[in-house]
Amino acid sequence: MSKYWSKLAAGVDPYVPGEQPKDKKYIKLNTNENPYPPSPRVLEAIKTVANESLKLYPDPNGDELKRTLAEYFGLKKDRIFLGNGSDEVLAFSFMTFFDSGFPILFPDITYSFYPVYANLFKINYELIPLNDDFAIPVDQFFKPNGGIIIPNPNAPTGEYLTLEAIEEILLHNNEHVVIIDEAYIDFGGESARKLIDKYPNLLVVHTLSKSRSLAGLRVGFAMGHEDLIEGLNRVKNSFNSYTLDRLALAGAVEAIKDEAYFQVTSKKISQTRERVTQDLQIMGFKVLPSKANFIFISHPSVKAEELFLKLKEESILVRYFKKPRIDNFLRVSIGSDDEMDNFLKAICKIIA
Amino acid sequence: MSKYWSKLAAGVDPYVPGEQPKDKKYIKLNTNENPYPPSPRVLEAIKTVANESLKLYPDPNGDELKRTLAEYFGLKKDRIFLGNGSDEVLAFSFMTFFDSGFPILFPDITYSFYPVYANLFKINYELIPLNDDFAIPVDQFFKPNGGIIIPNPNAPTGEYLTLEAIEEILLHNNEHVVIIDEAYIDFGGESARKLIDKYPNLLVVHTLSKSRSLAGLRVGFAMGHEDLIEGLNRVKNSFNSYTLDRLALAGAVEAIKDEAYFQVTSKKISQTRERVTQDLQIMGFKVLPSKANFIFISHPSVKAEELFLKLKEESILVRYFKKPRIDNFLRVSIGSDDEMDNFLKAICKIIA
Repeated sequence: MSKYWSKLAAGVDPYVPGEQPKDKKYIKLNTNENPYPPSPRVLEAIKTVANESLKLYPDPNGDELKRTLAEYFGLKKDRIFLGNGSDEVLAFSFMTFFDSGFPILFPDITYSFYPVYANLFKINYELIPLNDDFAIPVDQFFKPNGGIIIPNPNAPTGEYLTLEAIEEILLHNNEHVVIIDEAYIDFGGESARKLIDKYPNLLVVHTLSKSRSLAGLRVGFAMGHEDLIEGLNRVKNSFNSYTLDRLALAGAVEAIKDEAYFQVTSKKISQTRERVTQDLQIMGFKVLPSKANFIFISHPSVKAEELFLKLKEESILVRYFKKPRIDNFLRVSIGSDDEMDNFLKAICKIIA
Repeated sequence: MSKYWSKLAAGVDPYVPGEQPKDKKYIKLNTNENPYPPSPRVLEAIKTVANESLKLYPDPNGDELKRTLAEYFGLKKDRIFLGNGSDEVLAFSFMTFFDSGFPILFPDITYSFYPVYANLFKINYELIPLNDDFAIPVDQFFKPNGGIIIPNPNAPTGEYLTLEAIEEILLHNNEHVVIIDEAYIDFGGESARKLIDKYPNLLVVHTLSKSRSLAGLRVGFAMGHEDLIEGLNRVKNSFNSYTLDRLALAGAVEAIKDEAYFQVTSKKISQTRERVTQDLQIMGFKVLPSKANFIFISHPSVKAEELFLKLKEESILVRYFKKPRIDNFLRVSIGSDDEMDNFLKAICKIIA
């Protein structure tokens, strides 16, 4: 605490990302990164623009990337907003759509950055408790509110809401913005972007960090009615004109264009997820049904914290949240088949 | 205006960056970019990390870049804050240090992003009018305030405050943070970072966009007492954990390390600036004394707006601000010698 801090700076409760230890080599199953490298076309595109052009500012509007996304998703270009990772897109969304009146709603067990944004921008919120089986209670989002944000699939549970369930929520909410955070949608879910035409208050947020293997490049985007996108641009252009550098813009274009590569790698991850789920169930684990690139697991006798620590001794990192309701669960990112085999072997040894 | 916007989004007045037209090839002297390419070592470093590692998140703390800057500037690592361009560093600084109590102070003619940030975060401000000769009236910053921000050299005038003048301001202000925005300091000025040990409320902000030829890479940083840096990190980590991608981090390290290249290119720009200044003065222009990579010029008979439009016809872009006091001036970025020769020829023809 310093006397020079604003009330805002003094009042925040910053987000803590998963650890990125440098002490030794780990099998990293703790931050939902993709085990497969980015498309070779992405790397080529980056190398191609790593030239004299870096002396010039990037396109502040990212028009080429917007055009690429628009074509890919069959949307108009002015229905797309770009950001420095979906976390930045979410931060701008909280600023643009949520006020301090009626509380916004989000699940009690969800991406832990949401309450951080709410605290930062002094936005009231109400937590909607998940059901005992960690399913999202859709009808609890019908009460009066100042906006809604739901990740689909949810994190860290992996639980997925059908498009019909999302539409139910939209049918009961037309006064404020409903954000569907689809960071993990490409691993088996159906995107709500199809509903954008019908619901002018729907914002769908995506990232290239997970299904496009580009966590290191920092590119996210939102899709929604042009009025919502204009609001986001107003706030972004009052904060930082150039949020995406030339290399990220060029790489992102190729990541979207290389559809074949994307299909192969995301399918591999879903398949590995299903196989690992079965193996863990055979070992006695409870594994929540997941449509994401991670699973949320619990063992009937060995405590999650103990598993977490012992896996770390075996140079395997998973994510453990010491929080009510989920402190006997581990979130395990889906790695390559080899990585998961090592994980299963280590787990087998620990619970034996 | 949309019913879904927050009061914040409805109330902003976004910054408008210099135009980046795509219709034809221009000599771009309008956004203070560096005419020289980045160091070849930067491009090499970027190509080297354009590999599989992009699937992993970057270091959220940017430790290697902080170490490099710390060593270069002879500072402790915890006295450095990194951001996605100095604009993002400034946005976080407004959030971290300025409240809505006493107004903050900045010059009436200055970087036009400052009032945008103030409006965004509902921070009161008072404009300090520059003297008639556009010099900054140092003693006007001695009045009670909620913080101060001054670019040194100032933009768009290029006027420079000596280290003694900066220290005068600090001696009269120890209750709130004083930000010296040194985006252009490397073209002939002396940095205030030497005063950080003495003044725990001094924050010095730099960018790699100008003197390191990396506007396209989006890297900025702040230097100050560790308490100030901690505050900035609290806010940044409540907004976006990973603001710098792996490519930008790697390129920035080499930009700082290649001191010889930096010395040569920034010296060339200062020399070109001095020569062009003389040539313009011979043609009858008023040229404000500049320590930046741009000059601020006015002609006794041909109006600035007319010059701006005619230069554009000649495929030369400069910056014209249609604002009180400076609407008969042009800000001209210093390009390469060839570019400036073309500019001088065009000017000669226009005023003939």
